[in-house]
Amino acid sequence: MAGTVFFHVTMSLDGYIAPKDVPVQDLFGPSSKPDDPDVQRWLSQWSELHRATFPLRFFRENLQLGEGGEEGLDDDLARATHERTGAHVMGRRMFDAGELSWPAEAPFHTPVFVVTHHARDPWERPGGTTFHFVDEGTETALDLALAAAGERDVRISGGGATILQYLNGGLVDELTITLSPVLLGSGTRLFEGIDADRVTLEPLRSQPSPSGVTHLTYAVRERPAPSRGAA
Amino acid sequence: MAGTVFFHVTMSLDGYIAPKDVPVQDLFGPSSKPDDPDVQRWLSQWSELHRATFPLRFFRENLQLGEGGEEGLDDDLARATHERTGAHVMGRRMFDAGELSWPAEAPFHTPVFVVTHHARDPWERPGGTTFHFVDEGTETALDLALAAAGERDVRISGGGATILQYLNGGLVDELTITLSPVLLGSGTRLFEGIDADRVTLEPLRSQPSPSGVTHLTYAVRERPAPSRGAA
Repeated sequence: MAGTVFFHVTMSLDGYIAPKDVPVQDLFGPSSKPDDPDVQRWLSQWSELHRATFPLRFFRENLQLGEGGEEGLDDDLARATHERTGAHVMGRRMFDAGELSWPAEAPFHTPVFVVTHHARDPWERPGGTTFHFVDEGTETALDLALAAAGERDVRISGGGATILQYLNGGLVDELTITLSPVLLGSGTRLFEGIDADRVTLEPLRSQPSPSGVTHLTYAVRERPAPSRGAA
Repeated sequence: MAGTVFFHVTMSLDGYIAPKDVPVQDLFGPSSKPDDPDVQRWLSQWSELHRATFPLRFFRENLQLGEGGEEGLDDDLARATHERTGAHVMGRRMFDAGELSWPAEAPFHTPVFVVTHHARDPWERPGGTTFHFVDEGTETALDLALAAAGERDVRISGGGATILQYLNGGLVDELTITLSPVLLGSGTRLFEGIDADRVTLEPLRSQPSPSGVTHLTYAVRERPAPSRGAA
């Protein structure tokens, strides 16, 4: 369906989509601290969480990590997700981390709308990615993304807080979780603060992969208001 | 494999195996409070979480709720789990809740070892369930259960705190999570307090069901100690 708003994240079995926070400048870029134990732990848990992602042919191609790579269900889904996406929306924190870690040819190849408090001029990257900085709120960012996506869909890329804001706001149509067979024990929980009185799920697909992950896709439905007599 | 120690729980997509606590005597038994909004919320979320469980033929038969019921993958797995189990281990809180809600013919049909601080005489129920109250710790309870199970396996039945204690103690061989397509937003988290530096998982099976749940089975492995030079 054109204009579907979705997200697709990798989650640990205990519900985390990222290890316990460390400052992004410690992780990536010129002032990174590869010898810091917290940084080492973050990178090691991030690798475990994405163990099935990093070897994929599509991932390697898109991040310009080299030829070859794993094919099969995980790769097909990663590629299909990329191809259906006509625009991305992301939070400022994800952009800040990505700015330090993406290659010059950023891996989106669409307009990307960054929700921020600090407007700045659009930033065009080689390969079709242009970052637009939107300081008029999440709904405006989504409207702009939907207009830019045309016949394709809009992906809420992350991070966790941004995804949750759209989900609780009733603005997400569909979500896919790649459930990774790992336990992190701490970090950013995808559903921390979910409005369970409002958001319900309808299971669409559950796709186990030989890699050990399971791809779970749900439609998001708004829960009908309770039919209580009281005001 | 005879003597396997396992647990099998139903978990929401946001990681909860029970809704937010209410006193068990408010939920079940002679002094229950069916009009209390917290009780209504608990029961409604519990029903959502177990939407695929309650209609099963095996569940209805085992809880003496009547003839008939759903057959298929979910039912086959519930029955197989029951049949492989030669003894159960549970925490005191789960026993207290069950004592108020199980039928006289309790749904275990094996010896059940209740980990408690208050020893009492064994309590034999019709249909083959005998509750033994063990005040000598979790390991003793498990040893007794393994001896009682003979050629069959031991199920750590619950609740969450008891399961986690066995898991962090390195005493669980295998776990199955029936992942339910619901979000609870609060409650008892299965993996709250997991020792992620010790416990790792090896995916064994991922079985999507037409009911919308996915049954995920993992072997539990102890993480090798880090090969650090420091003492």
